[in-house]
Amino acid sequence: MEGAVVRELNLELPPPSLEDQRADEARLRQELASHLGKEPVIPLSTLQKVSEVLRPDFRLKARVAYDGRDFRLLDVLRPDEDLPCLGLGIDLGSTGVVLYLYDFLKGEVIRRRSFKNPQIPYGEDILTRLHYADKPERRRELHRITVTTLAQEVRKLLGRLPRRALLYYAICGNTTMSHFLLNLETRHLYREPYIPAASWIDTLRARELGLPGHEEALLFVFPNRGSYFGGDLLAGILASGMHKREEISILIDVGTNAEVVVGNREFLLATAGAAGPALEGGILRCGMQAAPGAIERVRIDPQTLKIEVQTIGQEPPRGICGSGVIDLLAQMFMAGLIDQRGKFVPERLPERFRRIDGELAFILVPEEETAHGKPIYVTEGEMKSVIRSKGAMYTILTVLCQSVGLSFDDIAHFFIAGSFGNYIDPEMAITIGMLPDVPLERFVPLGNAAGEGTIAFLRDASSFEELRRILENLTYLEMNVRSEFMNLLTGALFLPHTDLSLFPNVARKLGLR
Amino acid sequence: MEGAVVRELNLELPPPSLEDQRADEARLRQELASHLGKEPVIPLSTLQKVSEVLRPDFRLKARVAYDGRDFRLLDVLRPDEDLPCLGLGIDLGSTGVVLYLYDFLKGEVIRRRSFKNPQIPYGEDILTRLHYADKPERRRELHRITVTTLAQEVRKLLGRLPRRALLYYAICGNTTMSHFLLNLETRHLYREPYIPAASWIDTLRARELGLPGHEEALLFVFPNRGSYFGGDLLAGILASGMHKREEISILIDVGTNAEVVVGNREFLLATAGAAGPALEGGILRCGMQAAPGAIERVRIDPQTLKIEVQTIGQEPPRGICGSGVIDLLAQMFMAGLIDQRGKFVPERLPERFRRIDGELAFILVPEEETAHGKPIYVTEGEMKSVIRSKGAMYTILTVLCQSVGLSFDDIAHFFIAGSFGNYIDPEMAITIGMLPDVPLERFVPLGNAAGEGTIAFLRDASSFEELRRILENLTYLEMNVRSEFMNLLTGALFLPHTDLSLFPNVARKLGLR
Repeated sequence: MEGAVVRELNLELPPPSLEDQRADEARLRQELASHLGKEPVIPLSTLQKVSEVLRPDFRLKARVAYDGRDFRLLDVLRPDEDLPCLGLGIDLGSTGVVLYLYDFLKGEVIRRRSFKNPQIPYGEDILTRLHYADKPERRRELHRITVTTLAQEVRKLLGRLPRRALLYYAICGNTTMSHFLLNLETRHLYREPYIPAASWIDTLRARELGLPGHEEALLFVFPNRGSYFGGDLLAGILASGMHKREEISILIDVGTNAEVVVGNREFLLATAGAAGPALEGGILRCGMQAAPGAIERVRIDPQTLKIEVQTIGQEPPRGICGSGVIDLLAQMFMAGLIDQRGKFVPERLPERFRRIDGELAFILVPEEETAHGKPIYVTEGEMKSVIRSKGAMYTILTVLCQSVGLSFDDIAHFFIAGSFGNYIDPEMAITIGMLPDVPLERFVPLGNAAGEGTIAFLRDASSFEELRRILENLTYLEMNVRSEFMNLLTGALFLPHTDLSLFPNVARKLGLR
Repeated sequence: MEGAVVRELNLELPPPSLEDQRADEARLRQELASHLGKEPVIPLSTLQKVSEVLRPDFRLKARVAYDGRDFRLLDVLRPDEDLPCLGLGIDLGSTGVVLYLYDFLKGEVIRRRSFKNPQIPYGEDILTRLHYADKPERRRELHRITVTTLAQEVRKLLGRLPRRALLYYAICGNTTMSHFLLNLETRHLYREPYIPAASWIDTLRARELGLPGHEEALLFVFPNRGSYFGGDLLAGILASGMHKREEISILIDVGTNAEVVVGNREFLLATAGAAGPALEGGILRCGMQAAPGAIERVRIDPQTLKIEVQTIGQEPPRGICGSGVIDLLAQMFMAGLIDQRGKFVPERLPERFRRIDGELAFILVPEEETAHGKPIYVTEGEMKSVIRSKGAMYTILTVLCQSVGLSFDDIAHFFIAGSFGNYIDPEMAITIGMLPDVPLERFVPLGNAAGEGTIAFLRDASSFEELRRILENLTYLEMNVRSEFMNLLTGALFLPHTDLSLFPNVARKLGLR
């Protein structure tokens, strides 16, 4: 299956004659079959147009989409007709939603738009929303607000672009998100034995959900591998390409949950665990999402203890985002402002430590230098949470590798995904013992891997086959039931680890300090 | 492909557990795949129902339809839920439309309904309607009146039966009818080189045309083999089964046009010609459609010249229908009331001949015996038209057979279709030289072959393959360009023929007379 899920073919057909009385449809279908290797399905709306478009000269542009089983002739245009040919990748996150408008003719994303998930008023966390949706009419409410908002935002993204140009949607989200999107039963998702209503969703038409676009526009929702392994992760795997490589890679997606996959084209082992919120800056009183004013980089000179921060958009600091938290912890540790156990060392820089609400806090930016006139700080307790999260992350990676008999040295690539995947500094993550101490070039940032996965899908019609193979090859490891997890976690709750031999480069730097 | 286009499967699935966490959809899909030999497509509306129907005991009835490429899981029911499982065969004739409600569980037609084609006010004959439809908005008008009336009549036919029970439509009509039904361009249909917009119509959903039924109900429109060989004929071939037989058959469909097919499972040769209207009773001043009061049988005692007529429904006579005309001509001929050249012989029964509007007429039923108090008669000119039609029919059969090197003796079956297929008396048709003089048991009445074809389609999912093979095997013979036609026709304009050796049984009866 070569080419994107939508392709435009420029065709010139032999004109009809008394010797060749084939119907317009048959003439076109046979020509398309010779290009596609298979006869396409021709929807009624296309049949109704084809005779006029073909005449007078029997040349046309044919827009064909692949639905996972068949090609469908979605539209026909005169050869001189200019109309963009568009697809829409959607990362339906439980917190934020990102739309990517993809131009099939240019082969690139031409517009982006992001907005808050409209389900948030029904519950910050997914479990609250699931409880709410136990009654069918409430589930329908969540469904409706999701598709209505989606439709509005797509219309805003399209602006003056003609609706007819939009031919394909590819949407990924975790299993709950895809169930709400499609109004599928969610009651069994979060009750033992945790059964989704659907895992594989056959390609539907966008208008079945009331989403704008060409009247025949197709819509693909990424499948899931159970309640806890959603289409967002599968999209991430697709974006990484790890499922096609011979060498073994690890994909790390730190969203609200930490989700990790190890494998190659022959096997894929996945797991998930609670590691995320602290690493995203979510639990910090001064935490914020990656947005203008968020501190994303921190540097503390180990000798002078001079502190420098860098914000997104170079704006006056407003808070700390995920990558900033990791930087801060690493830099405090290297500067001796926090010890191996996670205890603050206020005597090393007394003017920067203060008690806030009875808790010891480190002032990263004093009030006079912030955007809002309040200090930006972290407390000792918050940093302990971050350390627990990073320890959990490292332990998940360790257990996952051990369970397939691999060491970190066997891993060719560490793909770092998630909302902060663009910005995380692997060196800092290694310094705090969150990521293993392997050569830095092995870390590959994926950005928003889920979103990238939807674009990867639109770019390549063989994604259907690949997703099926990924689902077949994928094994899910239940981390909660692994007894070694708790044992291994204990060592990982230190900075970087109780066993410094696991972090030789960090040990060397600590020695140099 | 075994079984009907819709089948209901009673399934019992293994319930989910922590060891088997497959989604409801996956569980069901895999079970269906093992029954169907192929994974079905599961539409969104079914996915939205499946979790509830499966619980508590994971037993269900699954209703699967075949669309020509894939199975689609149209509906799921609780095991104890009682709901008819219905299909609708529609013969969309240019004059009359017949609906057949087919019960997939009983395997039989349970209701019928017929009504006039609502396009008639736009033109009695097809050409007038085609001219009218040259402008797109007028074509849309014809389309709309067709589907609106169809929808109304289907609702009347269904009565109190739940719409959800209706899962499949199979509609046949001539090429113009299927184009109007689907609102396809008709301008090129009747202008050289006579190109339909579409020949093969991929199965669509009934709701795309606004027809009632299950929201996912499928709709199949029979294909055509060009402007002059429509889906009604293909349905007739399907109903006859001639395309599957080893022995060679002929299918004769006398509608407005005479359409004839000769062949077997290896070849099919078709042609059409103007032979029809007179044979249908259409051009007679006392002609009428086959309805109560129509004279369908005539007997004239060659000795006593006593005349007996039989009407449909045993009602007082109102007019003559197609089979009555053939009977009348044959009986008049055998009784010596019309000669071999088609000239009336009034001296043989003077009281029954009269001049009407200056033309010599034979009074079949005097005014005092009819329903309307007016005589029922035929004129000499009208009978000449009938003789021209029967001569054309016989000549078409002759040319068709000769062109494949066959004689009538090589033909195992003559399938007689068309609106009067139920009633025609082959012996009478042979007597006038319309049908060849072969043993009577070779004539097989098909009734409304087009309608029967739609039921044959619903009964058997392999019809898709069969129709494709019929289309591949079918050659169309342009009768107008055959030089032998006019030569052969001359001999056939006699009763039964100038060459009596072609009609040995008729000759024998004439000798006995």
